[in-house]
Amino acid sequence: MSDLPTSVTINEEGPREGFQIEPGPIATADKIRLIDALAGTGLRQIQCCSFVNPKRVPGMADADAVARGIERREDVHYTGLWLNEQGLMRAIGNGCLDLLGTVSQTASPPFLKSNQNTTPEENAARQDRTVKLYLEHGIPVERGSIMAAFGCNFMGEVPHARVLDCVDTILRIGAENGVEIPWISLNDTMGWATPVSVKRLIGAVRDRHPDLTLALHLHDTRGLGLANAMAGLEMGVRIFDASVAGLGGCPFAGHKGAAGNVCTEDLVFMCHEMGIETGVDLEALIDCALMAERIVGHDLPGRVMKGGALSALRREIAA
Amino acid sequence: MSDLPTSVTINEEGPREGFQIEPGPIATADKIRLIDALAGTGLRQIQCCSFVNPKRVPGMADADAVARGIERREDVHYTGLWLNEQGLMRAIGNGCLDLLGTVSQTASPPFLKSNQNTTPEENAARQDRTVKLYLEHGIPVERGSIMAAFGCNFMGEVPHARVLDCVDTILRIGAENGVEIPWISLNDTMGWATPVSVKRLIGAVRDRHPDLTLALHLHDTRGLGLANAMAGLEMGVRIFDASVAGLGGCPFAGHKGAAGNVCTEDLVFMCHEMGIETGVDLEALIDCALMAERIVGHDLPGRVMKGGALSALRREIAA
Repeated sequence: MSDLPTSVTINEEGPREGFQIEPGPIATADKIRLIDALAGTGLRQIQCCSFVNPKRVPGMADADAVARGIERREDVHYTGLWLNEQGLMRAIGNGCLDLLGTVSQTASPPFLKSNQNTTPEENAARQDRTVKLYLEHGIPVERGSIMAAFGCNFMGEVPHARVLDCVDTILRIGAENGVEIPWISLNDTMGWATPVSVKRLIGAVRDRHPDLTLALHLHDTRGLGLANAMAGLEMGVRIFDASVAGLGGCPFAGHKGAAGNVCTEDLVFMCHEMGIETGVDLEALIDCALMAERIVGHDLPGRVMKGGALSALRREIAA
Repeated sequence: MSDLPTSVTINEEGPREGFQIEPGPIATADKIRLIDALAGTGLRQIQCCSFVNPKRVPGMADADAVARGIERREDVHYTGLWLNEQGLMRAIGNGCLDLLGTVSQTASPPFLKSNQNTTPEENAARQDRTVKLYLEHGIPVERGSIMAAFGCNFMGEVPHARVLDCVDTILRIGAENGVEIPWISLNDTMGWATPVSVKRLIGAVRDRHPDLTLALHLHDTRGLGLANAMAGLEMGVRIFDASVAGLGGCPFAGHKGAAGNVCTEDLVFMCHEMGIETGVDLEALIDCALMAERIVGHDLPGRVMKGGALSALRREIAA
């Protein structure tokens, strides 16, 4: 237990994850209000919207207006998502976000086919072109990202070898373009991971790449999100994606029960209670989660926003 | 990871946990239907009802009728709960349950005061009288149980020394009455535990009592239920209380957000995916969880019943 990290970085993905899947419509002003509130909690990176086809993802049709409406703080990175060159060019044209490039791979070919209608080889070539575009436009490459790293609704178990191939491809694309990839996230896109598989896969990647920084992007589809995050912490992982109130889900996972990322405030609570710093004000974050619930108009899965932080109870007891 | 247990035993507490707190009213026939369905999943112990003051817990006013209505299976223990001698005598008078005695202690004196209006010394004396009653009536003592073992809304952090005192008291009461206590559960009654505190407390109890069998009763108030269960599994814990669909909550925890036990089917899913046997048919259990949701008439917190088991996906992929 003594090898838990002393601090972690959490990338907030709630606004993008959540508002892309909520049936809505959700007012642009409400989206902006939530992002502005999140920016006041100590979170240092917030994914605000995605520049995707509004016909496929109607909830993101106002991505441009959301990005323009944010009341920017100097100490926060406001990021966006895109899935192809067209989306990237829209994000660049918008000009209001802190664009950070991702080199994305998918460990399951059938999922890649279903989700993006492409093959691993075509996707690698496409990612190479995307990195070149990043460089042309001065966009830093923030991360590599491996989807379906722990299992796949279309393929089943995903062998470690496929994930290792994705790592190699990401590092190769980086090297060929003279870019150092700072870290790579292993994404449990469809909620197949367990604490054991998290530890085993991280171990397998570290065996080949001892110095590579790994991150976790964990969907809570089957309730194991925090247990899997804990397994990551025990392996020394220090970067997590998370989603306020547990907002979200993947509209393309071929699965109506797909859930969002692990809930940010639940993850922050777990970290703080174990002495791991996040830089986040948990009570302010809970207020954001409650705001998110009011905005979407239905219960969201986060637990700490219902159970409450222990800080308030400790103050009462001490008083 | 290799020291995970190969199998675990899960005591189902959903019917008692859930129906005592749901605003209801819930039809007696529905309660019986859920218990009968649970008994068909492979669960070997189901806590069906509690014999408590119907004025304080109106949802349990039909405890007698529920117990009488069960279609009994030979391979299932149908248990009940009582908090005092009066309740025990009602359970004995009912005659339809497999009564199992608990020697209960509470690690937080302020919680004991608030919850049962008693002191640790009075409670120890009362538990001693209860064990004598068990013996008179031929009721086996199944377990010791320590409430608020990980923290308390009225006291805050609970020192290990208090939990160790409770263990000593339970073992002393057993020894003085010639009864061997088979195992003791550490109860996170108010959702204060973390994976680190679970490991530390189990370690502290094992340091003093290396051969004592420990169990975990984990409330999911702040979303850490499964992460805490995983910490227990990593410490070799093989007995867990759990609640189908995450039904439940404690009406006396002084906290409106108090949640039920860790969700049974989520725990079963996590175990099975890591190769730990439970003896439970997960798909049948998910059907029970969906039935529980229909019975209470609102969303329940279980995740696997929404995300789905992976077994069906694996069959589809193999086909």
